[in-house]
Amino acid sequence: MASLPEPITELISVLHKLPGIGPRSAERLALHLVQSEASEVKQLAHTLVQARERIRTCEICGALTEQNPCAICSDTRREAGLICLVERAVDIITVEKSGTYPGKYHVLGGKISPLNGVEPEDLRIAELEARLDKEPIKEIVIALGTDVEGDATSHYLAKRLARPGLKLTRIAHGLPAGSGIEFADELTLTHAMAGRREMH
Amino acid sequence: MASLPEPITELISVLHKLPGIGPRSAERLALHLVQSEASEVKQLAHTLVQARERIRTCEICGALTEQNPCAICSDTRREAGLICLVERAVDIITVEKSGTYPGKYHVLGGKISPLNGVEPEDLRIAELEARLDKEPIKEIVIALGTDVEGDATSHYLAKRLARPGLKLTRIAHGLPAGSGIEFADELTLTHAMAGRREMH
Repeated sequence: MASLPEPITELISVLHKLPGIGPRSAERLALHLVQSEASEVKQLAHTLVQARERIRTCEICGALTEQNPCAICSDTRREAGLICLVERAVDIITVEKSGTYPGKYHVLGGKISPLNGVEPEDLRIAELEARLDKEPIKEIVIALGTDVEGDATSHYLAKRLARPGLKLTRIAHGLPAGSGIEFADELTLTHAMAGRREMH
Repeated sequence: MASLPEPITELISVLHKLPGIGPRSAERLALHLVQSEASEVKQLAHTLVQARERIRTCEICGALTEQNPCAICSDTRREAGLICLVERAVDIITVEKSGTYPGKYHVLGGKISPLNGVEPEDLRIAELEARLDKEPIKEIVIALGTDVEGDATSHYLAKRLARPGLKLTRIAHGLPAGSGIEFADELTLTHAMAGRREMH
């Protein structure tokens, strides 16, 4: 019985290790790639290596950046007293897209999840504490997700980071924009009710 | 507003060009890759380029292969009089997995599809005709899909390849193994009925 040549099976197995690439997509990608123009494949390989070599983690906030510290940490027009704590570096882009956040960021690098072996010391909490000592931080907005782990991590951080003169807040949970009551699940409605604010 | 660094957006855009990789997966892959070990990324890039460089198309049948002609075309134990015509190189692997096909192969490279700009001359039909002149081919089993284009291409080929002494057959269409009548659609049942055979 003939099988796929070894360079292809090897390529399938490395592609299969990437997140979100199942065995079928890995096979499809590999077969596409070996039948593409050699120059295109070289270009892809070059772009991969280049991106990995040029991108580093900002030593202050943990963002992905070409310069170190990153553009946001170096931006003196940004409010130095306000830090938005996000789970992943890419979450910064999401918050930035809203175009209304004036402060700086800190990337936690994950959520506490004992089941997945993620303990507080695996996250960038000590780095945040070090920033609290050095920078004039007045408020940390915790912007983690609303799942169980996001909740648990937020509460853990609220306790651990508490110190005089520091405000710890969490982004509001409630109805998403453009959505009606009828599409909200019970937990979202509970949050939305609990977080109700007086109208001016 | 901060956005992703340029090496990442560039990587996203090349990944997005690959088949089955949407904008979201491209972003996820790119962010994963720039945060992976540099050595792993280099290894991936190397595997890509190597696979592309080592794999070629068999000049006889069109299979993907490291040696030319491929292992199947060079195999003298294979029935030289029997050719299985498949759409894509990877279909050979599928047929081989059944472990019962004793002949050789020919890769068509697609299906006739005027809407997508695929005309007969874009397929490896002339190559097959050349083989008919050179090789002792007695039967061509057309093993294309059962969609409209597969049907049209099969009928076109049956006409074009017809010559004295050559048997042109098409693989049977009917109920898949392990399936019941209740799961079959009408067209499959029509094919299954039309293709009924006497039991011995």
